[in-house]
Formats: sequence, structure tokens, C-alpha cells
Amino acid sequence: MKIAVIGAGAMGSLFAGRLADEDHHVSLIEVSGAMIEAIGEKGLRMTGRFGEKTYRLPVGSADHYTDAFELLIVFTKGMHTTSAMEAAKHAIGPDTWALTVQNGIGNVEAIEAFIARDRIVMGMTNWPSTLIEPGLVNVPGDGEIKVWAASGQMSQKLEVIAAALDEAGLNCTLDSHVEVAIWEKLAFNSALNSLAAITGLTVGEMGDRRESRNIVFTIVDEVVAVAKARGLAVDVDHIRESIEHAFANHRQHKPSMLQDRLAGRRMEIGTITGAVSKTGAALGIATPVTTAFADLLTIVDGEA
Amino acid sequence: MKIAVIGAGAMGSLFAGRLADEDHHVSLIEVSGAMIEAIGEKGLRMTGRFGEKTYRLPVGSADHYTDAFELLIVFTKGMHTTSAMEAAKHAIGPDTWALTVQNGIGNVEAIEAFIARDRIVMGMTNWPSTLIEPGLVNVPGDGEIKVWAASGQMSQKLEVIAAALDEAGLNCTLDSHVEVAIWEKLAFNSALNSLAAITGLTVGEMGDRRESRNIVFTIVDEVVAVAKARGLAVDVDHIRESIEHAFANHRQHKPSMLQDRLAGRRMEIGTITGAVSKTGAALGIATPVTTAFADLLTIVDGEA
Repeated sequence: MKIAVIGAGAMGSLFAGRLADEDHHVSLIEVSGAMIEAIGEKGLRMTGRFGEKTYRLPVGSADHYTDAFELLIVFTKGMHTTSAMEAAKHAIGPDTWALTVQNGIGNVEAIEAFIARDRIVMGMTNWPSTLIEPGLVNVPGDGEIKVWAASGQMSQKLEVIAAALDEAGLNCTLDSHVEVAIWEKLAFNSALNSLAAITGLTVGEMGDRRESRNIVFTIVDEVVAVAKARGLAVDVDHIRESIEHAFANHRQHKPSMLQDRLAGRRMEIGTITGAVSKTGAALGIATPVTTAFADLLTIVDGEA
Repeated sequence: MKIAVIGAGAMGSLFAGRLADEDHHVSLIEVSGAMIEAIGEKGLRMTGRFGEKTYRLPVGSADHYTDAFELLIVFTKGMHTTSAMEAAKHAIGPDTWALTVQNGIGNVEAIEAFIARDRIVMGMTNWPSTLIEPGLVNVPGDGEIKVWAASGQMSQKLEVIAAALDEAGLNCTLDSHVEVAIWEKLAFNSALNSLAAITGLTVGEMGDRRESRNIVFTIVDEVVAVAKARGLAVDVDHIRESIEHAFANHRQHKPSMLQDRLAGRRMEIGTITGAVSKTGAALGIATPVTTAFADLLTIVDGEA
């Protein structure tokens, strides 16, 4: 397949490298000059789970490309989805599909302003990946991908995309209930990312304190209430187990929003905590603490 | 009267100086060596609303004093009330009264472990006072004091104490509904102090942003719900007006909890946000955002 990965961060690089390894024609679309320069000069380098590899891939801003791609894999932060699609719209043809396994919710809605919903694949991934420096990612462990059609309709192309990801070693399965998985991850992220970004606590430190546990599980309960009002059979015990697992096993981890705040980068609020708050309001479900954290995050967003 | 003021901070110094000016015999009880030394050497100095004055008052730790006082005025932060009373208990006789106009709630309960409730006067003050340095306070404007018996019973001694404060220029009135005033101030402080301490925003900056206004008025509504469940006729419009007034007129002000956090001092959580959360829980009134902020404040408390 002729694929473009939009956003050469930790996850975009992992997907691009793995797919390139299976002889797909993979291009990288980036906005950061430093990222383009590093990957152009040294290639895209990967360490960890898949060994030491260097991939020589086309890399550049969207206007660097002229022809339409078969598949756009969108891996920007949620607040950049629309601007990234806008920049890449000349490379979208009538047969171009899009895949989003970005964090949070609302990305499908942003993408469908550019590609019809029946050509969008949505999903969830828990692959771990860390950007060590521009063009160098480390993949410390294993993960999986679950995808389904954003339209809800099974199709041959959906099967082809899922098979390509699976053959690339990324453990991809089709799951018609992927929205449940998306919302379970959303609950996890709404709680841990928000609290870490506000307090500076690591995952382990959040698990050690009664006060942080109170806040984390209050937010989880609010997200679960909204998901259930949306008709999704999320499993609160499953979410709590994932969080307890993270408290015990990822003690030193700084969730991405905290990393962003410490680096003075914008935080991914609108598609995570903010999206829960908005969805709750639309459905008449109270999310007082999640909403307060979305507001707190907006207040401190971008402070360095 | 033979009076001891416990805690020679901004408010304790104001009360001590004004009462000394009316020929009461006023002593200061302090735990800080720097404070004792400064006041011992240079006297207690006051500027602002009452002019430039220096008061030569006895000052020392509680064990510096042997005889019982007629009146103890407790002006520690809420989390130090019990330890201060414990230290001063040898100076409490059968006729010793106590006065607390400290912030928040729960101080009467702490004091009555040492002095019977029918000898405790409780109240609320909005006098502004700033500690410039140990032993030097500035009183930038006017304020008032409202007091009533903690037992609810009018008495001659209550009148004598209120009259002494009023004659000292502190605008003191008797108010049998003082708990309403205490809870209205508690709503104000629970909202503005908490949010400022977490975000670093000044009062004016909190008023300028939609997100901070959301949080402030959510906390106010929660405190009001708890107060009403306690049978207190608090006026939410009155509280909102006070807050709007502060947003407009005290723009540069950093609420005391923010000052404490910036100085690496312990914050007054248990008698303000924490007390609302506990009282709400006891009465079955949900206070999700106030409780989350009490937890957040506890997490960051004492970080310098």
C-alpha cells in the first residue's frame, strides 16, 4: 500500500517503520523542521522490541507530496488533527482511506471533514513507544491494536488495513466493539494524565497516596457514567485493574500530558478530559471533577 | 482585660496592637523564634489605617507565661489550633474565655477540648492585614468583626469582649447569625484560595478566565449546598457579589494559601476546603469538586 503517516512522533514512527518493513511504500508527513532534518539525514531509527533498525523513508511537510495516498494514518495530537488534514488534503483522492488510533475521542469527526466516514478506520492501541530524540524511537514492550470501521460497516478494505498492521507485527484485530476499548482507555487517560499534569506526580506516586487515588477513581466513575449513557458496555472493574496494574508496574512513568507540560508543549485536553466533559454535558450526565480538571488543564496549558 | 493573642501574624498583630491601645494588658504568644526576637527588640509595629505605631508588648512562647489570662484570642492557622491550645493550657483558668475569628470551621471544636464551649466566642472578620516582616504589619483598609457565643447563649462576658473589640476601633458587632457569615466567607475562601494555590493565578486573573470562573462558582455552589443542609440561610448571590467585587478590585491579590504555597509553608486545608468536604460527607451532600481540590491541595501541600 501507498501509505502516509502524519506525525512522526513516538507512535507514528513505530507504525511507519513496521509497515515499511513489510514492503509498503511509507511516507512521513511532519511539520517540525528538526524532525524532518533528523529523519532525512539519519533515517528513522528504532530500538527495542523489534531490534535495531534504520528505515530510509520519504519525509517532509504535506506540500512535499503531490499524489494521493491509499491510506493516511493520522498520528498527530488530537488538537492538531484538523490542521494536519487540512494541510494534507491535496493528497486525498476518492479512494484514500484514513486510520486513526489516536488517543481520546473526536478525531473521527475531525477527519470526516476531509474523508467520508465510510473510508475511516478507527481504533485503539496500547503499544508503548518513546521518542528518544527526533528520528529515534524505542519500543520497550508489546502491545496490540483493535480497529473497526467508523461507519460501523465491515468492508474488504478494512480487512486489508487490519491485515497489513497485523502482518507488520503490531497485533491488530478487528473488533466491532472497539468504541468500548476506546472509552476504557479514555477513562484511564482522563484520570492519570490530568492528575499527573496538574500535580507532577508519577504513576507510582499517584498510586501511593489516598488523595490521588480518590481523584483518579472519581474521574474514572464519571467517564464510565458518560460511556454508559452513550450505550457502551465499558467495564469499570477492567479499567480499575488496568490502573492498579499501572500503579504497580509503571511507577516511574510520567503520563504524556505531564511530559508535554514539563516540556512547555500544548497538552492534549480537548480530545481527552475536555471531550468527556462535553459529551457528558450533551447527554445530561454530570462530570464535575472531570470538567474541573479540563478547566484546570486549560488554565495551565502551555505554561513552561 | 488581661489578654493573650496566640499567633503574632498579620491578624494577631492587628488585634493585639489595637487592644493594647485601649489599655488592655495584651501579651503575645508565638512559636517562631524569629518573630519573638523581632517583636522583643523593635516592638510590634503597625502602619496603615491606624497610623504609624509601635507597641511594646510581652512576647514569648506559651511557657513564658504562668498566670491565667482572662481572654485568649486564637489567631493561629487552623491546623495549629490544637497544638497552640495544648501549649497554652497552663494559662487557662476557670474564668478564661477564648475568642476565635479564624478562617474556616472546626476551630471552636478544637478549642473546646481545652475551654468549655460556654466560654468560647466565635466569629468572622474581614479586616485586611499584611505581615510585611516579623513584627511589622500593614493595615491597608477597613473591616469589621461579627461575633456570637459558640454555645448560642447571650452573656455579659460576650458583651464585654465585643465592646472591647469595638472600642479598639475594630467595628465589632454581636450577630446571632454569625455562622451564616462564617460559611459565606468559607465559600469565598474554599473557592479562591484553593484555585489560586493550585494554579498560581491572582484574584484578577481568576476573574478574567472562563475556566477559573467555572471552577470558582462550582465550589461556591457546593459549599452553599452544605451550608443549607446545615440549616444556615447563606445567600449565594451575596457570595457571588463578594467574589465579583474581589475579581474587579483586588486583582493583584494572592490569596493566603497561594502565599503559603509559594513560601513553602503548610496550607490551611483542613479547616477550609477539607472541612467543607467532611461536613458534606457527614450530611450526605455531594461536594465532588471541593473534595477533589482538598485532595489536590493535600498532594501539593508543603512542596516548596
